[in-house]
Amino acid sequence: MAIIVYSGGLDSTVLLYKYASEGRADEALSVCYGQRHAKELDFAQRNCRRLGIPFKSLDLSNIGALLGKNSLTDHGVGVPETQYSCDSMKSTVVPNRNMLLISLAASRAIAVGTDAVAYAAHGGDHALYPDCREEFARALDGALSLCHYFPIRLERPFVAFDKAGIVRLGAELGVDFADTWSCYKGGDVHCGKCGTCLERREAFKLAGVRDPTVYMQ
Amino acid sequence: MAIIVYSGGLDSTVLLYKYASEGRADEALSVCYGQRHAKELDFAQRNCRRLGIPFKSLDLSNIGALLGKNSLTDHGVGVPETQYSCDSMKSTVVPNRNMLLISLAASRAIAVGTDAVAYAAHGGDHALYPDCREEFARALDGALSLCHYFPIRLERPFVAFDKAGIVRLGAELGVDFADTWSCYKGGDVHCGKCGTCLERREAFKLAGVRDPTVYMQ
Repeated sequence: MAIIVYSGGLDSTVLLYKYASEGRADEALSVCYGQRHAKELDFAQRNCRRLGIPFKSLDLSNIGALLGKNSLTDHGVGVPETQYSCDSMKSTVVPNRNMLLISLAASRAIAVGTDAVAYAAHGGDHALYPDCREEFARALDGALSLCHYFPIRLERPFVAFDKAGIVRLGAELGVDFADTWSCYKGGDVHCGKCGTCLERREAFKLAGVRDPTVYMQ
Repeated sequence: MAIIVYSGGLDSTVLLYKYASEGRADEALSVCYGQRHAKELDFAQRNCRRLGIPFKSLDLSNIGALLGKNSLTDHGVGVPETQYSCDSMKSTVVPNRNMLLISLAASRAIAVGTDAVAYAAHGGDHALYPDCREEFARALDGALSLCHYFPIRLERPFVAFDKAGIVRLGAELGVDFADTWSCYKGGDVHCGKCGTCLERREAFKLAGVRDPTVYMQ
């Protein structure tokens, strides 16, 4: 059994479905750390209700004052409209985000007496986000194995997947992709132009799966 | 330079003085995670003002709902009056606390552009708290070295000290121990009976340093 680090985004929704299909999802944990979009939390809640997985949401939005200038938690910084590979996308890096989220999930795992935490880091994440790399995950897994009286495991089943592979698996598992949110902007529909929207569109195309997302552009 | 994980307790106050004396304290970070004593935060602020170190306090008290039953964050659970070595003191373990605090400090380090985090884990902590052990610290240091574009170092200069050694160093550095707080209960003065009060008293005695603390008993 595992605590699922769950944002309501595409990748972690497929992760949630995967663990639910295996009967291994203890609880889904969403953390609001001051990011723009409350929207993905609504989707997170809806997907958990559908799957019958307990949903826990934690408001840590006052952490923003700690994190400095980045375009996800500091709303004075614009979200760049560009491919992920571009240098300007570095403004979307929330410092040490994954260690924070995984630490919280591990605290929760210990509190409820379960022994694993799962997150949706995947192959496509590597270049831009240091804390999505497998070598980081392996090191953090080592620390988690020692943080309590019993070891906590860090599971990352998508580490060898690209995003198209995740879309393909999601389609097999019956994910309703219309109930997932990727856009870094907080609009009513996906903007279609920011790095994560571009990546989302591309992933459906590569996977050969119909994309039900409404994009502004 | 380093971000100091700083509670206002005895150990981390001596740590703060040590880094200040070496000109290596960038900032002190205190986190309220729902523990009983706002008192130690007052002391933390006072010591930082005295040393001219910027003080950052982060209120994460709503994290309590995540952490389950423990006597530090759940005020319905009594603080045991016993030695640290006793099994009942396990109720004072806040699950995965150090990884959480250190993760936050590392996020802050990245945000301000510094490359180290320091915390006051010491030799006496080992038995009861898994996340004070050196093997845990070593593993977490490995993860921190990979969490961003540049490595973050986890410094723990008291790892070979016992608490008496910390008191001795504090006395050399001119720490005003009356402005540090250890007691797990939230009274006006130290209770003198809980595990951390017993340990504090013992440490002054072993160090041969006058203990200015007012104890209820």
